[in-house]
Amino acid sequence: MLVIGDEILRGNIADANTAWLAKALHARGVDLVRATVVPDDVADIVATVRDLRERVGPHGAVFTSGGIGPTHDDKTYEAIAAAFDRALVRHGPTVERMQEHYDKRGVELNDARLRMAALPSPAEVLFTEGTWVPLVNVDGVYVLPGIPRLFKQMVGAHLDRFRGPLATGADCFTQMGEGDIADTLSEIAQEFPTVSIGSYPNASGDYSKYKVKISLSSRDQEALAAAMQAVRERLECLE
Amino acid sequence: MLVIGDEILRGNIADANTAWLAKALHARGVDLVRATVVPDDVADIVATVRDLRERVGPHGAVFTSGGIGPTHDDKTYEAIAAAFDRALVRHGPTVERMQEHYDKRGVELNDARLRMAALPSPAEVLFTEGTWVPLVNVDGVYVLPGIPRLFKQMVGAHLDRFRGPLATGADCFTQMGEGDIADTLSEIAQEFPTVSIGSYPNASGDYSKYKVKISLSSRDQEALAAAMQAVRERLECLE
Repeated sequence: MLVIGDEILRGNIADANTAWLAKALHARGVDLVRATVVPDDVADIVATVRDLRERVGPHGAVFTSGGIGPTHDDKTYEAIAAAFDRALVRHGPTVERMQEHYDKRGVELNDARLRMAALPSPAEVLFTEGTWVPLVNVDGVYVLPGIPRLFKQMVGAHLDRFRGPLATGADCFTQMGEGDIADTLSEIAQEFPTVSIGSYPNASGDYSKYKVKISLSSRDQEALAAAMQAVRERLECLE
Repeated sequence: MLVIGDEILRGNIADANTAWLAKALHARGVDLVRATVVPDDVADIVATVRDLRERVGPHGAVFTSGGIGPTHDDKTYEAIAAAFDRALVRHGPTVERMQEHYDKRGVELNDARLRMAALPSPAEVLFTEGTWVPLVNVDGVYVLPGIPRLFKQMVGAHLDRFRGPLATGADCFTQMGEGDIADTLSEIAQEFPTVSIGSYPNASGDYSKYKVKISLSSRDQEALAAAMQAVRERLECLE
């Protein structure tokens, strides 16, 4: 995930898209392996998106959020084109959809707005019902708007493309302290290398319900069940 | 900012520390230039913290969040030590503070908990009133817990260290569309290169109050005032 925008790095706007995407991908068995926020700077976006593209490998995908509006601080299409040696070409079907959208509202489709239809090319351009905004896919880099409502709508409409082997999860809530469960968890983690085991102290600081959550997840259901059984036998999980 | 944790990348827990830090630094004139989330993976943490350290230069700082608890999935001290060729050494003053903390609660200071006092060394170790958790500074890399309450308390207690030339900001809220203001904003941005100008459509989609927020900020107060005057003269700002 690549989040683009000075406003995020200044704390003026909190990024809600990464958390949403993380959850949506996880539910489909896809691992989010990295998320980075960069400023509205073409060179930084170019270098970072190339790095992320390489990290995720040929079957992976990168999602970008932000920087595709009509104003001077919107630099994402330009940067994506530069990163993958594409041209910026006015995209006919996008112009048609914009035209229809703005005509309905009596708003002029001026040059500034047409910048939003100058897309990296060649690229795959996907449309989403309910918005004219194109979802551009350049070599597995999916370019999305920063506005959370649109980001979710557009990713959600194309989630079919993203699916991995599903992981199953199970939690143990306990009143034991992290320091008391650490050695046992470490043993269990070593016994079950295909099971990911995390331990999370209750961040609220209110331990009336539980002190620590132990989360197990795995793509191997038998291993998960066996590891969970080991946790329940060796530690005190609440019912 | 480097956020460490599988739980964030799975969407189980949303990272609240980046947004808080961004705002706190911005208010003190310090630019946050990048934020990255990585999994609980030593090699990934090592490579990323080295990269971030280099990016921010000798006067910059890196903040890490998460991975300093007592369990097997807590790998941050180990990774920071590896990244900067430090040893992990049990830190006497931290042990004393832990001892006092756990004694009060009748909790055993076992080996697992003592892992939390095995700190990269040499390093500067800062303490914060109200918690035994040390704030370790290795060559400008400040190592913090992921729990937001502690993260804020500990950064907050040492914010004096971080100060830059203050930027001042001013906003214009408008009912004009981004496509209608784009050319003018672009001109103004070119006329005032020391002023950063961002334009943000109202993400709620409810335009009854405003459609677009234009945010100006600069460390040059005169330039800011002149740019804001230009915005008010050439665009329709709401009162």
